Amino acid sequence: MTREVRVRVDLMNVSIDGYAAGGTITVDEPIGGAGELFARFDGRVIAGVDRADAPITSDRLFTSVWGQGVGAEIMGRGKFGPQRGPWGDDGWRGWWGEDPPFRTPVIVLSHHPHPPIEFANGTVFHFRDASPADALAEAKELARGGDVRIGGGPSTVRDYLREDLVDFVHLAIQPIVLGRGVSLWEGLSGVHDRFDIESMATPNGVVHQFWNRH
Amino acid sequence: MTREVRVRVDLMNVSIDGYAAGGTITVDEPIGGAGELFARFDGRVIAGVDRADAPITSDRLFTSVWGQGVGAEIMGRGKFGPQRGPWGDDGWRGWWGEDPPFRTPVIVLSHHPHPPIEFANGTVFHFRDASPADALAEAKELARGGDVRIGGGPSTVRDYLREDLVDFVHLAIQPIVLGRGVSLWEGLSGVHDRFDIESMATPNGVVHQFWNRH
Repeated sequence: MTREVRVRVDLMNVSIDGYAAGGTITVDEPIGGAGELFARFDGRVIAGVDRADAPITSDRLFTSVWGQGVGAEIMGRGKFGPQRGPWGDDGWRGWWGEDPPFRTPVIVLSHHPHPPIEFANGTVFHFRDASPADALAEAKELARGGDVRIGGGPSTVRDYLREDLVDFVHLAIQPIVLGRGVSLWEGLSGVHDRFDIESMATPNGVVHQFWNRH
Repeated sequence: MTREVRVRVDLMNVSIDGYAAGGTITVDEPIGGAGELFARFDGRVIAGVDRADAPITSDRLFTSVWGQGVGAEIMGRGKFGPQRGPWGDDGWRGWWGEDPPFRTPVIVLSHHPHPPIEFANGTVFHFRDASPADALAEAKELARGGDVRIGGGPSTVRDYLREDLVDFVHLAIQPIVLGRGVSLWEGLSGVHDRFDIESMATPNGVVHQFWNRH
C-alpha cells in the first residue's frame, strides 16, 4: 500500500450560522453549552458500525469514517480538558475515562509542559508547545503511514485551514442556529476555493459536506 | 461489547430494472456480461477509505461499510468460480488471487464436496451442501461475534430474503437499464414491508438504499 498521508478534519459538527462550539469550556459543559451541536451525533459508530447494536443508517455510515485509516490526532488544549494556565496535579486524564476513542498517538497543543499520558487501548497523549506545521510533522511520524486527524476544537481546525495544511474535511452541518459561540469560519474567507465540495442531505436534517483539496 | 449479530447484504449493485447480474458466468465475464453494474464501484475502498489514495466521497464512504464489523461471509458457488458440476482438479482458488478481500471465513454453497482453501490474509473458503438456515448457523459460529454477510450472487441473496433471514441490506441502485440478467427481486413481492428503508442519491447518479429490518 503506497499512498499520500492525508490531513483530515473528521466529523466537524457546525451550526448553520457557522459555530462549532459554545462559550467557556467547563467540566460540566465540554462544548461550552453548545451540546445541541451533538444532539444528532451517535458516538457509538465513530469506530465503525460494528460497535453499535443499532440500525445502519446513512448518518451512521458517514460518522464511521472518523476511525478509518487514522494514525494520529492533533487537538487543542480545550478538547483535552477544561483547565487553564500551567497544568496542575489534579490527575486529569481527559474527558473519556479509561477507554478514549482515539487508540492512536494524540498531540495536545499546549504552551505548558505535561508528561505523556498512556492508556492500555493504544491512546497516548503527548503535550507540545509547537506551531501547527511542527506539530503536524511530528504527527505524521507518529501516524506510521496512517492519516492525521485535526481533531478540534474549532480554533485549532481554523489554524490548520488558514495555513492550508488540510486535505479533507467532513462537515456535519446541523439544522440549528446557535447565534453565539466559537466560529469555525472566522478569518477564512474564500477557504472553499481550495476544495472540491460534495453535499449530501440525510433524512435526519443534517447536511454532510465532504471537502477534498484540489 | 454486547450486541445482536446482524445478517447483512452489503453493497448489492442492482440496475433500475432489478437485475444484479448478467447471464452465464465465465472466467472472462464474472458478472455474466453485466459489468456495467460495477462501473461506478470503487473496490479499493471496501475495506475502508484508508486503502485508497483518492478523494473521500459519499459513494466511497458508503462503500466502506462492506468491511465494517463482518466476521464471516456466505456466497453462492457462482461468486467463487465459473465451474459447473463436480469440482475438478484445476487449482482454482477463486477470482481474487492470493489476497482475497474477505479476510474472514467464507462458506461457499455447493452441492459438490471440496476441501477448504486457506489464504495467508485470513480468508478461508469452506464448501458446504447446506440449506440457507444451516449455512447461516455455521457462519454465525465462524464469525465470532461479528456480522454475517450474505455475499451474493443475486440468487443466494434472494434465498436469504425469501426465508426472512436478513437484517440489513445496502443496495446501490445504478442508473442503468440492463433489460436482462439475474433478477434480484423475482419471487420477493412485498419484501420491502419488513424493512425501514432510507434512500440517498449521490452526485454520481447512484441511489444508495439502507434497509433495516423492523
